[in-house]
Amino acid sequence: MTTPVKLEPLDSGATPRFAGLATFMRLPVATPAEVDVALLGAPFDSGVTNRAGARHGPRELRNQSSLVRRHHHVTGRSPYDVARVGDCGDVPINPLDLMESMRLIEAHYRAVREAGATPLTAGGDHLISLPILRGLSTGASVGLIQFDAHSDTYDEFFGQKVNHGTPFRRAIEESLIDPKRMVQIGLRGSIGDPKNFDFAKAAGVRTIFIEEFCARGVDDVMDEARAILGTGPTYVTFDIDAIDPSQAPGTGTPEIGGLTTREAQAMIRRLSGLDVVGADLVEVAPPFDPSGLTAMTGATLMFELLCVVADSVAARVYG
Amino acid sequence: MTTPVKLEPLDSGATPRFAGLATFMRLPVATPAEVDVALLGAPFDSGVTNRAGARHGPRELRNQSSLVRRHHHVTGRSPYDVARVGDCGDVPINPLDLMESMRLIEAHYRAVREAGATPLTAGGDHLISLPILRGLSTGASVGLIQFDAHSDTYDEFFGQKVNHGTPFRRAIEESLIDPKRMVQIGLRGSIGDPKNFDFAKAAGVRTIFIEEFCARGVDDVMDEARAILGTGPTYVTFDIDAIDPSQAPGTGTPEIGGLTTREAQAMIRRLSGLDVVGADLVEVAPPFDPSGLTAMTGATLMFELLCVVADSVAARVYG
Amino acid sequence: MTTPVKLEPLDSGATPRFAGLATFMRLPVATPAEVDVALLGAPFDSGVTNRAGARHGPRELRNQSSLVRRHHHVTGRSPYDVARVGDCGDVPINPLDLMESMRLIEAHYRAVREAGATPLTAGGDHLISLPILRGLSTGASVGLIQFDAHSDTYDEFFGQKVNHGTPFRRAIEESLIDPKRMVQIGLRGSIGDPKNFDFAKAAGVRTIFIEEFCARGVDDVMDEARAILGTGPTYVTFDIDAIDPSQAPGTGTPEIGGLTTREAQAMIRRLSGLDVVGADLVEVAPPFDPSGLTAMTGATLMFELLCVVADSVAARVYG
Amino acid sequence: MTTPVKLEPLDSGATPRFAGLATFMRLPVATPAEVDVALLGAPFDSGVTNRAGARHGPRELRNQSSLVRRHHHVTGRSPYDVARVGDCGDVPINPLDLMESMRLIEAHYRAVREAGATPLTAGGDHLISLPILRGLSTGASVGLIQFDAHSDTYDEFFGQKVNHGTPFRRAIEESLIDPKRMVQIGLRGSIGDPKNFDFAKAAGVRTIFIEEFCARGVDDVMDEARAILGTGPTYVTFDIDAIDPSQAPGTGTPEIGGLTTREAQAMIRRLSGLDVVGADLVEVAPPFDPSGLTAMTGATLMFELLCVVADSVAARVYG
Amino acid sequence: MTTPVKLEPLDSGATPRFAGLATFMRLPVATPAEVDVALLGAPFDSGVTNRAGARHGPRELRNQSSLVRRHHHVTGRSPYDVARVGDCGDVPINPLDLMESMRLIEAHYRAVREAGATPLTAGGDHLISLPILRGLSTGASVGLIQFDAHSDTYDEFFGQKVNHGTPFRRAIEESLIDPKRMVQIGLRGSIGDPKNFDFAKAAGVRTIFIEEFCARGVDDVMDEARAILGTGPTYVTFDIDAIDPSQAPGTGTPEIGGLTTREAQAMIRRLSGLDVVGADLVEVAPPFDPSGLTAMTGATLMFELLCVVADSVAARVYG
Amino acid sequence: MTTPVKLEPLDSGATPRFAGLATFMRLPVATPAEVDVALLGAPFDSGVTNRAGARHGPRELRNQSSLVRRHHHVTGRSPYDVARVGDCGDVPINPLDLMESMRLIEAHYRAVREAGATPLTAGGDHLISLPILRGLSTGASVGLIQFDAHSDTYDEFFGQKVNHGTPFRRAIEESLIDPKRMVQIGLRGSIGDPKNFDFAKAAGVRTIFIEEFCARGVDDVMDEARAILGTGPTYVTFDIDAIDPSQAPGTGTPEIGGLTTREAQAMIRRLSGLDVVGADLVEVAPPFDPSGLTAMTGATLMFELLCVVADSVAARVYG
Repeated sequence: MTTPVKLEPLDSGATPRFAGLATFMRLPVATPAEVDVALLGAPFDSGVTNRAGARHGPRELRNQSSLVRRHHHVTGRSPYDVARVGDCGDVPINPLDLMESMRLIEAHYRAVREAGATPLTAGGDHLISLPILRGLSTGASVGLIQFDAHSDTYDEFFGQKVNHGTPFRRAIEESLIDPKRMVQIGLRGSIGDPKNFDFAKAAGVRTIFIEEFCARGVDDVMDEARAILGTGPTYVTFDIDAIDPSQAPGTGTPEIGGLTTREAQAMIRRLSGLDVVGADLVEVAPPFDPSGLTAMTGATLMFELLCVVADSVAARVYG
Repeated sequence: MTTPVKLEPLDSGATPRFAGLATFMRLPVATPAEVDVALLGAPFDSGVTNRAGARHGPRELRNQSSLVRRHHHVTGRSPYDVARVGDCGDVPINPLDLMESMRLIEAHYRAVREAGATPLTAGGDHLISLPILRGLSTGASVGLIQFDAHSDTYDEFFGQKVNHGTPFRRAIEESLIDPKRMVQIGLRGSIGDPKNFDFAKAAGVRTIFIEEFCARGVDDVMDEARAILGTGPTYVTFDIDAIDPSQAPGTGTPEIGGLTTREAQAMIRRLSGLDVVGADLVEVAPPFDPSGLTAMTGATLMFELLCVVADSVAARVYG
Repeated sequence: MTTPVKLEPLDSGATPRFAGLATFMRLPVATPAEVDVALLGAPFDSGVTNRAGARHGPRELRNQSSLVRRHHHVTGRSPYDVARVGDCGDVPINPLDLMESMRLIEAHYRAVREAGATPLTAGGDHLISLPILRGLSTGASVGLIQFDAHSDTYDEFFGQKVNHGTPFRRAIEESLIDPKRMVQIGLRGSIGDPKNFDFAKAAGVRTIFIEEFCARGVDDVMDEARAILGTGPTYVTFDIDAIDPSQAPGTGTPEIGGLTTREAQAMIRRLSGLDVVGADLVEVAPPFDPSGLTAMTGATLMFELLCVVADSVAARVYG
Repeated sequence: MTTPVKLEPLDSGATPRFAGLATFMRLPVATPAEVDVALLGAPFDSGVTNRAGARHGPRELRNQSSLVRRHHHVTGRSPYDVARVGDCGDVPINPLDLMESMRLIEAHYRAVREAGATPLTAGGDHLISLPILRGLSTGASVGLIQFDAHSDTYDEFFGQKVNHGTPFRRAIEESLIDPKRMVQIGLRGSIGDPKNFDFAKAAGVRTIFIEEFCARGVDDVMDEARAILGTGPTYVTFDIDAIDPSQAPGTGTPEIGGLTTREAQAMIRRLSGLDVVGADLVEVAPPFDPSGLTAMTGATLMFELLCVVADSVAARVYG
Repeated sequence: MTTPVKLEPLDSGATPRFAGLATFMRLPVATPAEVDVALLGAPFDSGVTNRAGARHGPRELRNQSSLVRRHHHVTGRSPYDVARVGDCGDVPINPLDLMESMRLIEAHYRAVREAGATPLTAGGDHLISLPILRGLSTGASVGLIQFDAHSDTYDEFFGQKVNHGTPFRRAIEESLIDPKRMVQIGLRGSIGDPKNFDFAKAAGVRTIFIEEFCARGVDDVMDEARAILGTGPTYVTFDIDAIDPSQAPGTGTPEIGGLTTREAQAMIRRLSGLDVVGADLVEVAPPFDPSGLTAMTGATLMFELLCVVADSVAARVYG
Repeated sequence: MTTPVKLEPLDSGATPRFAGLATFMRLPVATPAEVDVALLGAPFDSGVTNRAGARHGPRELRNQSSLVRRHHHVTGRSPYDVARVGDCGDVPINPLDLMESMRLIEAHYRAVREAGATPLTAGGDHLISLPILRGLSTGASVGLIQFDAHSDTYDEFFGQKVNHGTPFRRAIEESLIDPKRMVQIGLRGSIGDPKNFDFAKAAGVRTIFIEEFCARGVDDVMDEARAILGTGPTYVTFDIDAIDPSQAPGTGTPEIGGLTTREAQAMIRRLSGLDVVGADLVEVAPPFDPSGLTAMTGATLMFELLCVVADSVAARVYG
């Protein structure tokens, strides 16, 4: 194993957190070729069917991520000790053209992958996972673990097949995801049609509703999830609306009765050791987040994800 | 059983949730005679002794209820499949005359009952339960299950016997409620007088404080509550301040350490099968709810209540 | 002249303003065929290039319009005495498909026109004026008076010719508007290109920047505007960002140094006597309007516009 | 002239403004007998017909008044050099009984008058002016200058003669006010009935609408107002909704196009030399004032009023 | 035991909670010599390294404490029945001089102690605990129980040894605290250095991270804490950031995944019977608390602390 | 004249304004040596005596400056065509040590000057002007034009001579500023001492209160100001509290009755042609700016200042 050239966040004990440009985790700006893990923003919300605003997510997540320090308090370890991590800026998108944006995002992530970086993305609405998965695809399906209030495996809304309620159905149809290696946790909320989950179930996706989660607890659920995901390449997607709206009000489609941040943190930590090929945290909508709490929650969960991704990347690259 | 003429909410997959007039659950406007379950607003807060604002509750609950879809995700069933439900508008009140408002509300609910509809009301402060119970009364006492931080069985404030801290004492005194079939869940918060609960206890009301609730859990508590309520006619009243202020800050008299929405949802679902003659959700005060979270929580709990009420009505009417 | 069947708002001295469904001006819901002036919402913001949110405009404008009473305090007259005015609901749109929305809106306004109603529309972003003008078109160009911080006569953004910065260029190109009978008032703010106004000027549009307005005052400017508009059919479009952001912060592209509401009210009143074939008030974006002030300003200006439109309609219809 | 025992605010150059109990202007708590000018709160809003919240006005006005320093910057003089001024606490009211509150307030102001203090009151809704005038009455009518968006000389709302839209009609009927010595400035906003101003005009009240004010300017209007008020005893009432909602959004019935604070300050300064027997500033509603701007505006205008009242009192008492 | 002269809060059933000056718990203003328990504010935040605002904490805690009533609902007992409690105002501080503020605070608490009162302080940032402990010191070390997200036993930030991240290291070094009788509960959040906790652990401080707390629960953790604290004199310090940001967003350094208020209340109640020589509740930062929820939570927890302190004082003084 | 290597902001017609890192005006990050005009942040508020928060100013000004485009709409010219402008990051400061911060800032600006760049700084509180003037000093006094509600020429607060109320007295005493070439515009607000302005007046500073400004108007006042400033080197300082709080609520010491943004823009434009050696815009305090309006106003005024500074620099450098 070769020690990477370290990229370090600013030290909040020397430079105040409120000072300086707001990059993710106060990290240096870098190109994908310069990093092992690329932190990226996808300022895009043309896929939403209800309240827009996630286009402003990357900026506020960067802003609030100034509150995050270097080391994880449970492990005492720093992701920056095991992998080069940098802020690789925002993905190009076209706010007036949904389909062109799909192509732009896909091409951008293809380039990220070809540069050798593993992306951790701040959305944007959940539709971004689709072009990200397309761009990262090397031909083989990947596993998926999805924290979410909604299944996002619907067929269409408003006659459109591409929107933030459908990305994972499209990804399954395109064999980007192996539905047998796909788990959804935290589903809840009233539904437009009782058949909403039929596709996912028929495809073999494991859907864990909040009620089942509450009855079983973090450890039991994550044991099962890890068994399903196995050792193959896996993508992690975290929709902030998985979290209860009291801890993450600023999102387009909130649903009460959600995960607590304690539960979410514990579950993300249980992802340690998976072969993670990418991750995202989506649907933070700052216009509906007057106190900044949602972005703060999101930024902290991004750090939890980063610790998992960095370890996985380190094992692949330096391991 | 006759299939009712269905009244359906707008489909949010075809008409966006932000479009159209804000009726409860995006349902059609209807008269009580046209529905089995009447959704009503009581824009009234002259009964409050601290912070006003619940007068704006019905409008914001309507607004946020656009986020609710048709089917319950646990049962897969829709209340609109078993009963005719419509938005029957707001109750007339006089903001300058407390006692006249009492009379106006009572008369309105008498008319609703005589039209054959079962009301589910959005308050308004908790005093509205008193004229509603009067209007719905057919002479016999009903059971009551009350989710609340406060007992609301006090005798008087400011020398007045009719206010939002006294409705259930008055209702017991008037034999509208059978105190032996009355349960209160979620009580907490500092009290002005240690004798505050003496009346309720002497009358036979079962008061379950939050501490007892936490120790026993939803299932145990609801088993007892159902045993107390039995099979007789029952009214359900849900004060939003039963919920923790992190999930429902917008209310006049918040108390920390409250119910979570998960617990509340689980308890309301356990009401299934009761003979419900009416229900309300009260004390949502939008001026103290900058993020809209309280109204969103309230609207979702109204949908949970609606599922229970619709089933009960269906059993009575079409059963 | 035949006295119309009057449609009246609820009386706020009898029914409190916070009570009842939030329709425009507390008017009855009606079909275009039942009214002379159709108040309509266009919950659409897919045309914005910066901050979305105007999709929520119609609902909040309806909500705040409950504060408006029946008679204008300067004239003492009521628009409801001279014309039938009703809330005709929201225009159908597709939040995922910009071009389909253009077609849906155009078709809807063609139907409104064919029903004999003159529309006063609450946006929505400024792009909606384009399909409205298309739908209202009878073949001949109309005059246009535009209150706005921006000219909206640009050619394209993000490679797209149809967005909220281009509607009036398209409308001129399509001969929907006669640029010789077009006036823009309140223009200001930094610009991407010094040639931004070349098209408008070359076409003969009269552009009155805020600096010229300040130097000349309301009366002088409006004398000129009326001379340009003449007696032909005229459309009135009011972008809320014409108003200073201190009085209308909730909009997508605010620019400091704007019109005061006093100035705006005075200018709208000077439109009296024009032959108005339609009007709109656009770009109210509630997610950026925490205090509700923008929607309140917008609703009051809609009432000012309504008084002008109703008089014009009355002259045409009841002569 | 005897130099009074001075009561001084805390010095913000020695004790920070954010420190200490929030009394009006950081003054000592005192009884009416200990002061020449009594600063009082009237935490009462049972008279409102639309949005409540002015009950919280006194507390927030006290809070924001910590920003006010001792000397007026134009005159260089301090009201505390010419009169003893103290915070005399809040008036007793009954939030559940409008009529009892009327009696409580009246009795309290009678006692204030009998103690020899001149009251400057922070409301509360505008109805409080009525019991204040009753309590201060010595039998003879007083003059009134009213800054307001609304005339408040209506006859009744909701069948009630006593509410925040009627105080000055009642006061004229009871001969508390001499309508020939009464001026209203800043009136505007849509009206429910074109006859709304008939009573005031018939009684001889001078009503100056915002349009007339704008055309004439501060000096011309105030010259006329002073001529009307003359040298007799005069009460000054300032409804915060006289100010434009951009500078005072937190009020129950805002109307756009209002006075600027500059204009208001200039007009209050022109009251200097009148024989002022009392003053109030009403309708600050903190729940609708998320930024605190309204209370800050109100507290500063209270200081402007205080300078006028103190000089008037000094002339009477120490003259 | 001598019955104290009782100092009682205003009765919210007779004087509305929104009325009157905002003192802590609506108690009378008093000098330390007049009370057994002195409620004090420390409007100081010069020790913060990130977001300031705790200087405004005392005022908002006073404001929100109007919602607290006299008796604890679990015990039915009132602290005002067992001890004289009053609002003793704010500590003098110098916002421009950190070190002088340290001296001012220390001297003030020395005087409080010498007057015979036990202080319960509303911060202010956490640095205030250091000069408080200095001022209260009689020479012997005291035990400490600290509810906090952060250990605050770091050595320095920005080259400064005295700031809100270091008070307890300084206090241990100065033998104000006996580290063998010190417990920290609720620690969490990313850390700048994995050695951050080395000092505390080497000194013998018991650090209980949130993960351990969640695994063991309130009772088990508090059993251990009480065993560590023993029967000696103990200081209680509660940093509001111990609470989850959903229930206490308004603080300078929030960390997700925190204690619930239910848990906090249960733990404070378990302090009953300790020999408490002082307590504080710190880091409430109102500028980051738009809904007031943090101050409301803080004020209620202050009442919980007050019940413990009053009992302890009563045992010492009247016991 | 040599055409500079142009540094250009991102084009908002190609890259959305909400995308990308938030640098000032969306400009490239650069070192002082790479630019003619250095945009800098000074995240510092240890000099405030009332409400802190200006430490967060630079970040929010950067954030809101994404709304600003390239060309001035009045001149049609772009500052980026005449000078190289870049975002040179934030000045180092120590939030725990006021005097060390003074030294750090001074040294930083000395280096900026020595690198050949002219600084335009986003504060921070007004104290930063003092170390900036020290760092820029070449020995000779400069002229100063100050837009401000407060004179900031006081002697001391809390026994400290260095704070945000005293910078210009210190600067005059240190001969950094020539008081005969110093003008203050917009002064207002209550004062602690009638002698507050004696120092400035005795020194020869021209103080123009808001009352004088209103009476004379922009042109007359600026004619005089330009005559006073003459052709010598001049520093421009703009305290955002010069602007009325309705347009700039988010500041530490707001005063009603201030400048409008229209007036401010007109005055800044009248600075064209001066020999400007530096400028700052200070006292934007985001925690008190819930809608972002203050930062938006500040960012736009920074652009107005930039146009003046760039022209002046171009005349000096490329002239």
